[in-house]
Amino acid sequence: MIYLTRKEHFNAAHQLYNPDWDIAKNQIVFGKCANKHFHGHNYDLYVTVKGLPDKETGFIMNVKELSQIIKKEVCLLLDHKNLNLDVLELKGVMVSTENLAVFIWQKLLPHIKGCQLHSIKLYETENIYVEYYGE
Amino acid sequence: MIYLTRKEHFNAAHQLYNPDWDIAKNQIVFGKCANKHFHGHNYDLYVTVKGLPDKETGFIMNVKELSQIIKKEVCLLLDHKNLNLDVLELKGVMVSTENLAVFIWQKLLPHIKGCQLHSIKLYETENIYVEYYGE
Amino acid sequence: MIYLTRKEHFNAAHQLYNPDWDIAKNQIVFGKCANKHFHGHNYDLYVTVKGLPDKETGFIMNVKELSQIIKKEVCLLLDHKNLNLDVLELKGVMVSTENLAVFIWQKLLPHIKGCQLHSIKLYETENIYVEYYGE
Amino acid sequence: MIYLTRKEHFNAAHQLYNPDWDIAKNQIVFGKCANKHFHGHNYDLYVTVKGLPDKETGFIMNVKELSQIIKKEVCLLLDHKNLNLDVLELKGVMVSTENLAVFIWQKLLPHIKGCQLHSIKLYETENIYVEYYGE
Amino acid sequence: MIYLTRKEHFNAAHQLYNPDWDIAKNQIVFGKCANKHFHGHNYDLYVTVKGLPDKETGFIMNVKELSQIIKKEVCLLLDHKNLNLDVLELKGVMVSTENLAVFIWQKLLPHIKGCQLHSIKLYETENIYVEYYGE
Amino acid sequence: MIYLTRKEHFNAAHQLYNPDWDIAKNQIVFGKCANKHFHGHNYDLYVTVKGLPDKETGFIMNVKELSQIIKKEVCLLLDHKNLNLDVLELKGVMVSTENLAVFIWQKLLPHIKGCQLHSIKLYETENIYVEYYGE
Repeated sequence: MIYLTRKEHFNAAHQLYNPDWDIAKNQIVFGKCANKHFHGHNYDLYVTVKGLPDKETGFIMNVKELSQIIKKEVCLLLDHKNLNLDVLELKGVMVSTENLAVFIWQKLLPHIKGCQLHSIKLYETENIYVEYYGE
Repeated sequence: MIYLTRKEHFNAAHQLYNPDWDIAKNQIVFGKCANKHFHGHNYDLYVTVKGLPDKETGFIMNVKELSQIIKKEVCLLLDHKNLNLDVLELKGVMVSTENLAVFIWQKLLPHIKGCQLHSIKLYETENIYVEYYGE
Repeated sequence: MIYLTRKEHFNAAHQLYNPDWDIAKNQIVFGKCANKHFHGHNYDLYVTVKGLPDKETGFIMNVKELSQIIKKEVCLLLDHKNLNLDVLELKGVMVSTENLAVFIWQKLLPHIKGCQLHSIKLYETENIYVEYYGE
Repeated sequence: MIYLTRKEHFNAAHQLYNPDWDIAKNQIVFGKCANKHFHGHNYDLYVTVKGLPDKETGFIMNVKELSQIIKKEVCLLLDHKNLNLDVLELKGVMVSTENLAVFIWQKLLPHIKGCQLHSIKLYETENIYVEYYGE
Repeated sequence: MIYLTRKEHFNAAHQLYNPDWDIAKNQIVFGKCANKHFHGHNYDLYVTVKGLPDKETGFIMNVKELSQIIKKEVCLLLDHKNLNLDVLELKGVMVSTENLAVFIWQKLLPHIKGCQLHSIKLYETENIYVEYYGE
Repeated sequence: MIYLTRKEHFNAAHQLYNPDWDIAKNQIVFGKCANKHFHGHNYDLYVTVKGLPDKETGFIMNVKELSQIIKKEVCLLLDHKNLNLDVLELKGVMVSTENLAVFIWQKLLPHIKGCQLHSIKLYETENIYVEYYGE
């Protein structure tokens, strides 16, 4: 079993704010991340697939095809967007890095063929990242 | 003459949109950066001062003091903010990386004492940065 | 299960020297690392916790709280210190990166609540790092 | 169990081209990577070993010895070489990053003593890497 | 005056070999870089332009346009190529990083309009880079 | 004129402490950096030379020779050392990054031949660096 990883990125605005709470509680829990007018990040996304190398190509999966799937299924949806307002499928979801990683897993899973999706690693800043293995 | 640089960072939302133009022209010129609901970045900021080392400390300037000035005068104002909506002094300014670098220079200049402010280097993404030397 | 990682850092002096051996054997085994007057490193520390995201916050654990725990329990103890002379709990311990990672695990374990400590990843230089999973 | 990783690097030329196919099919599958006169990369190689720290040294394995083994068994063979033409043992192998990682594992395995080889992580570019765990 | 930099990259094979010398002298001067069958690198290219920000856009130059010019005039020519064999304009040129930086300057200069080309910074590896300012 | 840069590194312990002051004043000015038993850093050193490329090699200077000079004249002296206690020529010097950069310039200057030493860039941490141009 070999693991192949491709890095892509997207830049987005977001806000952590729970509408069931008042402003004061949001401030206590989320601090600056609750800012009414949003803030933003350069997200770095690492997608890992696993499988056996094909005899004729030496590839688990053509990494250019993997790159195109990530760009089409994830970056097109999230890049230069407001994660709270612009992404229909994230309406009502707290857009924490944790939930975003799970969301990206679900978007990619149906499109990885001939090998298996192994993990999503999502950097919010160079000091914070989340990993999800689908289980 | 010796040059001393300190790196700080801030995360912010912004939008490039010229209100004197219609939506179509904004789309043509700014593309995804004109997104109505904003997008965002992890900005990396390098501030360089220059001078002669003090005999007693070996320092041009105490780098902890430089760090505190940048945090107080710049990061407090811009971090986890919407650059278009939350920063009074940027109202009516196109918040391009170019204009943001000049703005940061102007905020820091009055607070650098005992040596000279030399340059601002501001990364919008790892692939794009701007430098300003005050002239 | 989702994995959340926070990066912190500390700068410290240390020496690798086994007092049960003579100088010659220490030189052979540890080379420059046995230098009598110590040398030092910028250590980068990645702490990973795992759990399920909270429904109300979207968080496994508030990453700011995780950062504060690491700073209080580890960085306060090790940053700008001599690992051989200044840290009582490391007296008599070979302060290899391996042993340091286990030590950091033990310092953090009692303070991670509501989710599980998963791993410690400790960089001694950009070319050398150690991982420990508590087992 | 503790995991210790050492990073080394090598710079090499290569080409992805399947001689059983015609030029057109090679172009479709491998694109620019099939270029007749080769292209090249700065490969970054991370080798991880695992074991228990020695009581007297605090080491799983002396990282300088690990570095020397990687340089002697891998870098000497691959650095500043053409992977398709200069490396006898790779003749007839598609030199994909996947196959290269397996090859490096096989070269290192007989030389890791006193602890176990755990994984090979090989970066072809900063955006593409492969991992292999020997199974 | 503000300076704007865009990073792009290309991967290429090359060889340092002076045909006026015999093999032995090439080996002495260029060492492993003279390898008959070539080796290769991931080149990172930073292009800096300078000028005054436009009142309406806040831009010295639209960084997307700068990116497209670099890709069209430089990367299309050099990416996934053999610098000695595939690039007509480099025939007879020693493809040192120094000469490559000057070549890239000359390719870009006619295409930078509305502001000035300021510098080329070209990384051959993470430990070696060359800068050229056109004079 | 072309500029060529080579990166090297060294790991060292040091302390910022002015013996003309009492402990309290040292604490106020240098904070944790005054720790009695030292602390340490991984220093990254960038050395830049400038000149015209040689017709026969395409080189300003052979970068391998530059690397050897830096290793012999600087790293051998400073790597895995205590900058306060182990380096005779630094006795009585405040080993700030500023003074260390000037010291490195002076050590290298007599050994750069056939081109000119242009600058020293010395990183103490990834967030702090100093540059010196010899004037």
